Amino acid sequence: MPAPILGSLYLLPMPLGTGAAARAAVPPGVAARLAQLRHVAAEGPRRAAALIAPLLKDHGHAEALAALSRDEYTFYEISEHSLDLDGPLKLLHAGTDVGLISEAGYPAIADPGAELVSAAHALGCRVEVLTGPSSLMLALAASGLGGQLFAFHGYLPRKAAERTQAILRLEAESQRTGQTQLCIEAPYRNAELLDALLAALSPSTLLCVACDLTLPTALVTTLSVRDWHTQPRPDLHKRPTVFLWRG
Amino acid sequence: MPAPILGSLYLLPMPLGTGAAARAAVPPGVAARLAQLRHVAAEGPRRAAALIAPLLKDHGHAEALAALSRDEYTFYEISEHSLDLDGPLKLLHAGTDVGLISEAGYPAIADPGAELVSAAHALGCRVEVLTGPSSLMLALAASGLGGQLFAFHGYLPRKAAERTQAILRLEAESQRTGQTQLCIEAPYRNAELLDALLAALSPSTLLCVACDLTLPTALVTTLSVRDWHTQPRPDLHKRPTVFLWRG
Repeated sequence: MPAPILGSLYLLPMPLGTGAAARAAVPPGVAARLAQLRHVAAEGPRRAAALIAPLLKDHGHAEALAALSRDEYTFYEISEHSLDLDGPLKLLHAGTDVGLISEAGYPAIADPGAELVSAAHALGCRVEVLTGPSSLMLALAASGLGGQLFAFHGYLPRKAAERTQAILRLEAESQRTGQTQLCIEAPYRNAELLDALLAALSPSTLLCVACDLTLPTALVTTLSVRDWHTQPRPDLHKRPTVFLWRG
Repeated sequence: MPAPILGSLYLLPMPLGTGAAARAAVPPGVAARLAQLRHVAAEGPRRAAALIAPLLKDHGHAEALAALSRDEYTFYEISEHSLDLDGPLKLLHAGTDVGLISEAGYPAIADPGAELVSAAHALGCRVEVLTGPSSLMLALAASGLGGQLFAFHGYLPRKAAERTQAILRLEAESQRTGQTQLCIEAPYRNAELLDALLAALSPSTLLCVACDLTLPTALVTTLSVRDWHTQPRPDLHKRPTVFLWRG
Protein backbone atom coordinates (compact mmCIF):
# COMPACT_ATOMS: atom_id res chain seq x y z
CA MET A 1 0.00 0.00 0.00
CA PRO A 2 1.51 3.38 -0.92
CA ALA A 3 1.99 5.89 1.90
CA PRO A 4 -0.98 8.27 2.10
CA ILE A 5 -0.42 11.76 0.71
CA LEU A 6 -0.65 14.11 3.68
CA GLY A 7 -1.65 17.76 3.61
CA SER A 8 0.85 20.50 4.40
CA LEU A 9 0.61 22.83 7.37
CA TYR A 10 1.29 26.45 6.41
CA LEU A 11 2.32 28.87 9.17
CA LEU A 12 1.17 32.34 8.18
CA PRO A 13 2.33 35.46 10.05
CA MET A 14 -0.18 38.27 10.53
CA PRO A 15 0.26 42.07 10.63
CA LEU A 16 1.37 43.63 13.92
CA GLY A 17 -1.65 45.96 13.98
CA THR A 18 -4.44 47.31 11.82
CA GLY A 19 -4.04 49.65 8.88
CA ALA A 20 -2.31 49.59 5.52
CA ALA A 21 1.23 50.15 6.84
CA ALA A 22 1.05 47.13 9.15
CA ARG A 23 -0.35 44.99 6.31
CA ALA A 24 2.39 46.15 3.93
CA ALA A 25 4.92 44.40 6.21
CA VAL A 26 3.34 41.06 5.27
CA PRO A 27 4.76 39.74 1.97
CA PRO A 28 2.26 39.03 -0.86
CA GLY A 29 2.98 35.29 -0.58
CA VAL A 30 1.04 35.12 2.69
CA ALA A 31 -2.13 36.45 1.06
CA ALA A 32 -1.58 34.20 -1.97
CA ARG A 33 -1.37 31.15 0.32
CA LEU A 34 -4.43 32.26 2.32
CA ALA A 35 -6.32 32.54 -0.97
CA GLN A 36 -5.60 28.86 -1.72
CA LEU A 37 -6.56 27.48 1.69
CA ARG A 38 -10.09 26.95 3.03
CA HIS A 39 -9.16 25.58 6.47
CA VAL A 40 -7.40 27.83 8.94
CA ALA A 41 -6.46 27.26 12.58
CA ALA A 42 -6.42 30.47 14.60
CA GLU A 43 -6.06 31.66 18.16
CA GLY A 44 -9.27 33.66 17.78
CA PRO A 45 -11.38 31.93 15.12
CA ARG A 46 -14.14 34.53 15.43
CA ARG A 47 -11.65 37.29 14.61
CA ALA A 48 -9.84 35.31 11.92
CA ALA A 49 -12.02 36.38 8.98
CA ALA A 50 -11.53 40.04 9.93
CA LEU A 51 -7.77 39.47 10.03
CA ILE A 52 -7.43 37.79 6.66
CA ALA A 53 -10.06 39.67 4.62
CA PRO A 54 -7.99 42.90 4.28
CA LEU A 55 -4.92 40.89 3.24
CA LEU A 56 -6.91 39.09 0.53
CA LYS A 57 -8.36 42.44 -0.58
CA ASP A 58 -4.99 44.26 -0.69
CA HIS A 59 -3.59 41.66 -3.05
CA GLY A 60 -6.65 41.33 -5.29
CA HIS A 61 -7.72 37.80 -4.35
CA ALA A 62 -11.36 38.46 -5.25
CA GLU A 63 -12.43 34.81 -5.50
CA ALA A 64 -11.06 33.96 -2.07
CA LEU A 65 -12.64 37.08 -0.60
CA ALA A 66 -16.01 36.03 -2.03
CA ALA A 67 -15.53 32.52 -0.62
CA LEU A 68 -14.75 34.05 2.78
CA SER A 69 -17.94 36.12 2.67
CA ARG A 70 -19.92 32.97 1.75
CA ASP A 71 -18.51 31.25 4.88
CA GLU A 72 -16.52 28.78 2.79
CA TYR A 73 -13.52 29.12 5.09
CA THR A 74 -13.58 26.94 8.20
CA PHE A 75 -11.70 28.11 11.27
CA TYR A 76 -10.38 25.94 14.11
CA GLU A 77 -9.54 27.29 17.55
CA ILE A 78 -5.96 26.82 18.74
CA SER A 79 -5.79 28.88 21.91
CA GLU A 80 -4.92 28.44 25.54
CA HIS A 81 -8.66 28.16 26.22
CA SER A 82 -9.48 25.58 23.58
CA LEU A 83 -7.21 23.39 21.51
CA ASP A 84 -9.01 21.97 18.49
CA LEU A 85 -6.19 19.75 17.21
CA ASP A 86 -8.49 16.99 15.92
CA GLY A 87 -10.12 19.09 13.21
CA PRO A 88 -6.87 20.25 11.53
CA LEU A 89 -5.11 16.89 12.04
CA LYS A 90 -7.93 14.93 10.37
CA LEU A 91 -7.73 17.26 7.37
CA LEU A 92 -3.93 16.96 7.14
CA HIS A 93 -4.25 13.18 7.39
CA ALA A 94 -6.78 13.21 4.54
CA GLY A 95 -4.43 15.21 2.32
CA THR A 96 -5.96 18.68 2.78
CA ASP A 97 -3.68 21.66 3.37
CA VAL A 98 -4.29 23.69 6.54
CA GLY A 99 -3.14 27.17 7.52
CA LEU A 100 -2.19 28.33 10.99
CA ILE A 101 -2.40 32.06 11.65
CA SER A 102 -1.50 34.15 14.67
CA GLU A 103 -3.23 37.23 16.05
CA ALA A 104 -0.08 39.23 15.25
CA GLY A 105 3.37 38.20 14.05
CA TYR A 106 4.44 34.55 13.71
CA PRO A 107 2.20 31.72 14.84
CA ALA A 108 3.79 29.48 17.49
CA ILE A 109 6.09 32.24 18.78
CA ALA A 110 4.85 33.94 21.97
CA ASP A 111 1.58 32.39 20.79
CA PRO A 112 -0.22 29.07 21.41
CA GLY A 113 0.14 27.44 17.95
CA ALA A 114 3.15 25.22 18.72
CA GLU A 115 1.02 22.21 19.77
CA LEU A 116 -0.51 22.00 16.30
CA VAL A 117 2.89 22.34 14.62
CA SER A 118 4.30 19.64 16.85
CA ALA A 119 1.34 17.32 16.13
CA ALA A 120 1.74 17.92 12.39
CA HIS A 121 5.42 16.92 12.63
CA ALA A 122 4.43 13.79 14.55
CA LEU A 123 1.98 12.91 11.75
CA GLY A 124 4.82 13.30 9.24
CA CYS A 125 3.37 16.36 7.50
CA ARG A 126 5.33 18.98 5.64
CA VAL A 127 5.42 22.18 7.70
CA GLU A 128 6.10 25.39 5.77
CA VAL A 129 6.43 28.76 7.42
CA LEU A 130 6.09 31.96 5.43
CA THR A 131 7.98 35.16 6.18
CA GLY A 132 6.22 37.97 7.97
CA PRO A 133 6.71 40.60 10.65
CA SER A 134 8.15 39.55 14.02
CA SER A 135 7.99 42.27 16.67
CA LEU A 136 10.87 40.53 18.49
CA MET A 137 13.26 40.53 15.52
CA LEU A 138 12.25 44.04 14.43
CA ALA A 139 12.84 45.29 17.97
CA LEU A 140 16.14 43.45 18.32
CA ALA A 141 17.52 44.79 15.03
CA ALA A 142 16.30 48.35 15.65
CA SER A 143 17.54 48.44 19.24
CA GLY A 144 21.20 48.39 18.27
CA LEU A 145 21.83 46.30 21.40
CA GLY A 146 23.38 43.47 19.45
CA GLY A 147 21.79 40.27 18.25
CA GLN A 148 24.74 37.86 18.51
CA LEU A 149 23.24 36.35 21.67
CA PHE A 150 19.72 37.01 22.90
CA ALA A 151 16.88 35.50 24.89
CA PHE A 152 13.15 36.10 24.96
CA HIS A 153 11.58 35.72 28.39
CA GLY A 154 7.91 36.29 27.58
CA TYR A 155 6.14 37.97 30.48
CA LEU A 156 8.05 38.69 33.68
CA PRO A 157 6.41 37.76 37.02
CA ARG A 158 3.49 40.04 37.94
CA LYS A 159 4.39 40.52 41.61
CA ALA A 160 6.72 43.48 42.08
CA ALA A 161 9.34 41.75 44.24
CA GLU A 162 9.61 38.71 41.97
CA ARG A 163 9.68 40.92 38.89
CA THR A 164 12.57 42.97 40.31
CA GLN A 165 14.42 39.76 41.13
CA ALA A 166 13.93 38.51 37.56
CA ILE A 167 15.12 41.82 36.07
CA LEU A 168 18.26 41.78 38.23
CA ARG A 169 18.98 38.12 37.46
CA LEU A 170 18.66 38.74 33.72
CA GLU A 171 20.81 41.87 33.95
CA ALA A 172 23.54 39.92 35.73
CA GLU A 173 23.38 37.19 33.08
CA SER A 174 23.62 39.84 30.36
CA GLN A 175 26.66 41.42 32.04
CA ARG A 176 28.31 38.01 32.21
CA THR A 177 27.53 36.77 28.68
CA GLY A 178 26.61 39.79 26.55
CA GLN A 179 23.13 38.34 25.96
CA THR A 180 20.45 40.88 25.02
CA GLN A 181 17.30 40.26 27.09
CA LEU A 182 13.81 40.67 25.59
CA CYS A 183 10.42 40.64 27.25
CA ILE A 184 6.88 41.81 26.67
CA GLU A 185 4.02 42.88 28.93
CA ALA A 186 0.25 43.11 28.72
CA PRO A 187 -0.13 46.46 26.86
CA TYR A 188 -2.05 48.14 29.69
CA ARG A 189 0.82 47.38 32.10
CA ASN A 190 3.64 48.72 29.88
CA ALA A 191 4.20 51.88 31.94
CA GLU A 192 4.43 49.81 35.11
CA LEU A 193 7.08 47.54 33.56
CA LEU A 194 9.10 50.51 32.29
CA ASP A 195 9.06 51.99 35.80
CA ALA A 196 10.15 48.66 37.28
CA LEU A 197 13.01 48.28 34.76
CA LEU A 198 14.26 51.83 35.38
CA ALA A 199 14.08 51.32 39.14
CA ALA A 200 16.00 48.03 39.08
CA LEU A 201 18.61 48.24 36.30
CA SER A 202 22.11 49.71 36.70
CA PRO A 203 22.71 53.25 35.36
CA SER A 204 25.05 51.99 32.62
CA THR A 205 22.71 49.26 31.32
CA LEU A 206 21.24 50.04 27.89
CA LEU A 207 17.45 49.83 27.74
CA CYS A 208 15.44 49.89 24.53
CA VAL A 209 11.70 50.42 24.25
CA ALA A 210 10.34 49.42 20.83
CA CYS A 211 6.69 50.26 20.38
CA ASP A 212 4.08 50.11 17.57
CA LEU A 213 6.54 48.44 15.20
CA THR A 214 5.50 48.58 11.50
CA LEU A 215 2.85 51.20 12.41
CA PRO A 216 3.09 54.90 11.47
CA THR A 217 3.39 55.64 15.21
CA ALA A 218 6.46 53.36 15.63
CA LEU A 219 8.89 54.43 18.31
CA VAL A 220 12.30 52.92 19.07
CA THR A 221 14.32 54.51 21.88
CA THR A 222 17.62 53.10 23.15
CA LEU A 223 19.28 54.91 26.05
CA SER A 224 21.34 54.05 29.08
CA VAL A 225 19.22 53.78 32.22
CA ARG A 226 21.08 56.89 33.44
CA ASP A 227 19.85 58.86 30.40
CA TRP A 228 16.32 57.41 30.60
CA HIS A 229 16.07 59.04 34.05
CA THR A 230 16.68 62.50 32.50
CA GLN A 231 14.00 62.11 29.80
CA PRO A 232 10.22 62.28 29.82
CA ARG A 233 8.92 58.71 29.58
CA PRO A 234 7.06 57.81 26.38
CA ASP A 235 3.35 57.04 26.61
CA LEU A 236 3.24 53.26 26.09
CA HIS A 237 -0.31 52.70 27.35
CA LYS A 238 -2.02 49.96 25.32
CA ARG A 239 0.67 50.18 22.60
CA PRO A 240 2.32 46.82 21.76
CA THR A 241 5.86 47.14 23.08
CA VAL A 242 9.01 45.04 23.29
CA PHE A 243 11.45 45.81 26.14
CA LEU A 244 15.13 44.98 25.63
CA TRP A 245 18.21 45.48 27.77
CA ARG A 246 21.89 44.65 27.83
CA GLY A 247 24.11 45.14 30.88
CA MET B 1 18.92 77.72 16.31
CA PRO B 2 16.56 74.93 15.20
CA ALA B 3 17.73 71.37 15.73
CA PRO B 4 19.37 69.99 12.57
CA ILE B 5 17.26 67.60 10.52
CA LEU B 6 18.98 64.25 10.71
CA GLY B 7 18.78 61.46 8.19
CA SER B 8 17.05 58.16 9.01
CA LEU B 9 18.78 54.81 9.21
CA TYR B 10 16.82 52.07 7.44
CA LEU B 11 17.53 48.45 8.39
CA LEU B 12 16.80 46.29 5.38
CA PRO B 13 16.64 42.47 5.61
CA MET B 14 18.01 40.46 2.71
CA PRO B 15 16.91 37.10 1.22
CA LEU B 16 18.15 33.93 2.93
CA GLY B 17 19.67 32.64 -0.31
CA THR B 18 19.70 33.18 -4.04
CA GLY B 19 16.82 32.57 -6.40
CA ALA B 20 13.31 33.88 -6.88
CA ALA B 21 11.74 31.93 -3.98
CA ALA B 22 14.19 33.39 -1.45
CA ARG B 23 13.61 36.90 -2.83
CA ALA B 24 9.83 36.46 -2.68
CA ALA B 25 10.14 36.24 1.12
CA VAL B 26 11.31 39.87 1.15
CA PRO B 27 8.32 42.27 1.12
CA PRO B 28 8.16 44.83 -1.74
CA GLY B 29 8.73 47.68 0.74
CA VAL B 30 12.38 46.67 1.11
CA ALA B 31 13.04 47.06 -2.61
CA ALA B 32 11.03 50.31 -2.66
CA ARG B 33 13.21 51.72 0.13
CA LEU B 34 16.43 50.51 -1.55
CA ALA B 35 15.30 52.32 -4.71
CA GLN B 36 15.12 55.61 -2.77
CA LEU B 37 18.49 55.33 -1.03
CA ARG B 38 21.92 55.92 -2.57
CA HIS B 39 24.05 55.19 0.51
CA VAL B 40 24.10 51.67 1.91
CA ALA B 41 26.17 50.17 4.71
CA ALA B 42 26.85 46.47 4.20
CA GLU B 43 28.85 43.65 5.69
CA GLY B 44 30.29 42.89 2.25
CA PRO B 45 30.20 46.12 0.23
CA ARG B 46 31.68 44.41 -2.83
CA ARG B 47 28.81 41.92 -2.82
CA ALA B 48 26.15 44.50 -1.96
CA ALA B 49 25.27 45.50 -5.52
CA ALA B 50 24.79 41.86 -6.47
CA LEU B 51 22.46 41.43 -3.48
CA ILE B 52 20.24 44.42 -4.15
CA ALA B 53 20.13 44.44 -7.98
CA PRO B 54 17.77 41.41 -8.26
CA LEU B 55 15.44 42.90 -5.63
CA LEU B 56 15.27 46.19 -7.56
CA LYS B 57 14.68 44.24 -10.78
CA ASP B 58 11.93 42.00 -9.36
CA HIS B 59 9.92 45.02 -8.29
CA GLY B 60 10.46 47.10 -11.43
CA HIS B 61 12.65 49.85 -9.98
CA ALA B 62 14.30 50.58 -13.33
CA GLU B 63 15.67 54.01 -12.44
CA ALA B 64 17.37 52.76 -9.32
CA LEU B 65 18.75 49.76 -11.19
CA ALA B 66 20.24 52.10 -13.80
CA ALA B 67 21.70 54.27 -11.02
CA LEU B 68 23.24 51.14 -9.49
CA SER B 69 24.83 50.18 -12.79
CA ARG B 70 26.21 53.74 -13.12
CA ASP B 71 27.88 53.33 -9.69
CA GLU B 72 25.64 55.98 -8.14
CA TYR B 73 25.18 53.87 -5.02
CA THR B 74 27.91 54.21 -2.39
CA PHE B 75 28.57 51.27 -0.08
CA TYR B 76 30.19 51.43 3.37
CA GLU B 77 31.76 48.43 5.05
CA ILE B 78 30.30 47.43 8.43
CA SER B 79 31.97 44.12 9.17
CA GLU B 80 34.04 42.50 11.86
CA HIS B 81 37.10 43.26 9.71
CA SER B 82 36.37 46.92 9.02
CA LEU B 83 33.90 49.25 10.64
CA ASP B 84 33.28 52.35 8.53
CA LEU B 85 30.99 54.18 10.94
CA ASP B 86 32.24 57.66 10.02
CA GLY B 87 30.93 57.59 6.46
CA PRO B 88 27.31 56.69 7.32
CA LEU B 89 27.26 58.86 10.47
CA LYS B 90 28.40 61.99 8.58
CA LEU B 91 25.62 61.42 6.05
CA LEU B 92 22.99 60.91 8.76
CA HIS B 93 24.22 64.04 10.52
CA ALA B 94 23.90 66.00 7.26
CA GLY B 95 20.30 64.85 6.79
CA THR B 96 20.86 62.06 4.25
CA ASP B 97 19.09 58.73 4.72
CA VAL B 98 21.27 55.63 4.90
CA GLY B 99 20.40 51.96 4.52
CA LEU B 100 21.96 49.07 6.40
CA ILE B 101 21.71 45.65 4.77
CA SER B 102 22.77 42.21 5.90
CA GLU B 103 24.19 39.32 3.89
CA ALA B 104 21.06 37.31 4.74
CA GLY B 105 18.14 37.98 7.07
CA TYR B 106 18.02 40.96 9.44
CA PRO B 107 20.96 43.32 9.81
CA ALA B 108 22.29 43.55 13.38
CA ILE B 109 21.03 40.05 14.32
CA ALA B 110 23.73 37.36 14.24
CA ASP B 111 25.45 40.00 12.08
CA PRO B 112 27.85 42.90 12.74
CA GLY B 113 25.52 45.89 12.04
CA ALA B 114 24.57 46.68 15.65
CA GLU B 115 27.42 49.19 16.15
CA LEU B 116 26.05 51.42 13.39
CA VAL B 117 22.50 51.17 14.77
CA SER B 118 23.75 52.04 18.24
CA ALA B 119 25.75 55.02 16.90
CA ALA B 120 22.68 56.24 14.98
CA HIS B 121 20.62 56.12 18.19
CA ALA B 122 23.36 58.05 20.01
CA LEU B 123 23.22 60.72 17.29
CA GLY B 124 19.45 60.96 17.81
CA CYS B 125 18.50 59.56 14.40
CA ARG B 126 15.28 57.82 13.56
CA VAL B 127 15.94 54.09 13.11
CA GLU B 128 13.41 52.19 11.04
CA VAL B 129 13.56 48.46 10.46
CA LEU B 130 11.65 46.82 7.64
CA THR B 131 10.21 43.34 7.79
CA GLY B 132 12.00 40.49 6.08
CA PRO B 133 12.96 36.86 6.52
CA SER B 134 14.62 35.76 9.76
CA SER B 135 15.98 32.22 9.68
CA LEU B 136 15.74 32.13 13.48
CA MET B 137 12.03 33.04 13.67
CA LEU B 138 11.13 30.85 10.69
CA ALA B 139 12.95 27.93 12.29
CA LEU B 140 11.41 28.55 15.71
CA ALA B 141 7.85 28.71 14.35
CA ALA B 142 8.30 25.70 12.07
CA SER B 143 10.00 23.58 14.72
CA GLY B 144 6.86 23.28 16.86
CA LEU B 145 9.14 23.33 19.90
CA GLY B 146 7.37 26.33 21.39
CA GLY B 147 8.32 29.97 21.23
CA GLN B 148 7.08 31.21 24.61
CA LEU B 149 10.67 31.24 25.90
CA PHE B 150 13.75 30.89 23.72
CA ALA B 151 17.38 31.85 23.46
CA PHE B 152 19.80 32.16 20.56
CA HIS B 153 23.37 31.16 21.39
CA GLY B 154 25.12 31.93 18.12
CA TYR B 155 27.97 29.49 17.51
CA LEU B 156 28.79 26.88 20.13
CA PRO B 157 32.45 26.38 21.13
CA ARG B 158 34.53 24.66 18.41
CA LYS B 159 36.42 22.28 20.69
CA ALA B 160 34.52 19.02 21.13
CA ALA B 161 34.69 18.83 24.93
CA GLU B 162 33.60 22.44 25.45
CA ARG B 163 30.87 22.05 22.86
CA THR B 164 29.47 18.99 24.62
CA GLN B 165 29.54 20.88 27.92
CA ALA B 166 27.64 23.77 26.35
CA ILE B 167 25.03 21.44 24.82
CA LEU B 168 24.46 19.72 28.16
CA ARG B 169 24.29 23.00 30.07
CA LEU B 170 21.70 24.40 27.63
CA GLU B 171 19.71 21.16 27.74
CA ALA B 172 19.61 21.31 31.54
CA GLU B 173 18.46 24.94 31.39
CA SER B 174 15.77 23.98 28.90
CA GLN B 175 14.57 21.13 31.12
CA ARG B 176 14.35 23.55 34.04
CA THR B 177 12.68 26.51 32.31
CA GLY B 178 11.08 25.21 29.09
CA GLN B 179 13.32 27.51 27.03
CA THR B 180 13.87 26.44 23.43
CA GLN B 181 17.58 26.66 22.55
CA LEU B 182 18.74 27.86 19.11
CA CYS B 183 22.20 27.85 17.59
CA ILE B 184 23.89 27.96 14.20
CA GLU B 185 27.15 26.60 12.82
CA ALA B 186 29.47 27.38 9.93
CA PRO B 187 27.64 25.57 7.08
CA TYR B 188 30.54 23.21 6.33
CA ARG B 189 30.50 21.98 9.96
CA ASN B 190 26.73 21.30 10.17
CA ALA B 191 27.09 17.51 10.07
CA GLU B 192 29.65 17.65 12.86
CA LEU B 193 27.31 19.70 15.05
CA LEU B 194 24.37 17.37 14.38
CA ASP B 195 26.54 14.41 15.42
CA ALA B 196 27.62 16.25 18.58
CA LEU B 197 24.02 17.14 19.50
CA LEU B 198 22.80 13.56 18.95
CA ALA B 199 25.69 12.19 21.00
CA ALA B 200 25.13 14.56 23.94
CA LEU B 201 21.37 15.14 24.27
CA SER B 202 18.97 12.91 26.22
CA PRO B 203 16.81 10.45 24.25
CA SER B 204 13.60 12.34 25.13
CA THR B 205 14.88 15.80 24.13
CA LEU B 206 13.25 17.15 20.96
CA LEU B 207 15.74 18.26 18.31
CA CYS B 208 14.79 20.26 15.22
CA VAL B 209 16.98 20.80 12.17
CA ALA B 210 15.70 23.63 9.96
CA CYS B 211 17.63 23.97 6.74
CA ASP B 212 17.42 26.07 3.54
CA LEU B 213 14.48 28.07 4.88
CA THR B 214 12.53 30.01 2.18
CA LEU B 215 14.35 27.97 -0.50
CA PRO B 216 12.68 25.27 -2.64
CA THR B 217 14.95 22.74 -0.87
CA ALA B 218 13.71 23.75 2.62
CA LEU B 219 13.73 20.97 5.20
CA VAL B 220 12.34 21.10 8.73
CA THR B 221 12.59 17.92 10.81
CA THR B 222 11.62 17.72 14.48
CA LEU B 223 12.13 14.40 16.25
CA SER B 224 13.10 13.16 19.68
CA VAL B 225 16.80 12.34 19.91
CA ARG B 226 15.69 8.70 20.33
CA ASP B 227 13.92 8.84 16.94
CA TRP B 228 16.77 10.74 15.26
CA HIS B 229 18.99 7.74 16.04
CA THR B 230 16.68 5.45 13.99
CA GLN B 231 16.65 7.72 10.90
CA PRO B 232 19.17 8.43 8.15
CA ARG B 233 20.69 11.85 8.87
CA PRO B 234 19.88 14.60 6.36
CA ASP B 235 22.70 15.99 4.23
CA LEU B 236 23.28 19.43 5.75
CA HIS B 237 26.65 20.10 4.14
CA LYS B 238 26.99 23.79 3.23
CA ARG B 239 23.24 24.32 3.65
CA PRO B 240 22.31 27.19 6.02
CA THR B 241 20.81 25.46 9.05
CA VAL B 242 19.34 26.41 12.41
CA PHE B 243 19.53 23.80 15.20
CA LEU B 244 16.91 23.92 17.96
CA TRP B 245 16.24 21.73 20.97
CA ARG B 246 14.03 21.56 24.02
CA GLY B 247 14.58 19.16 26.91
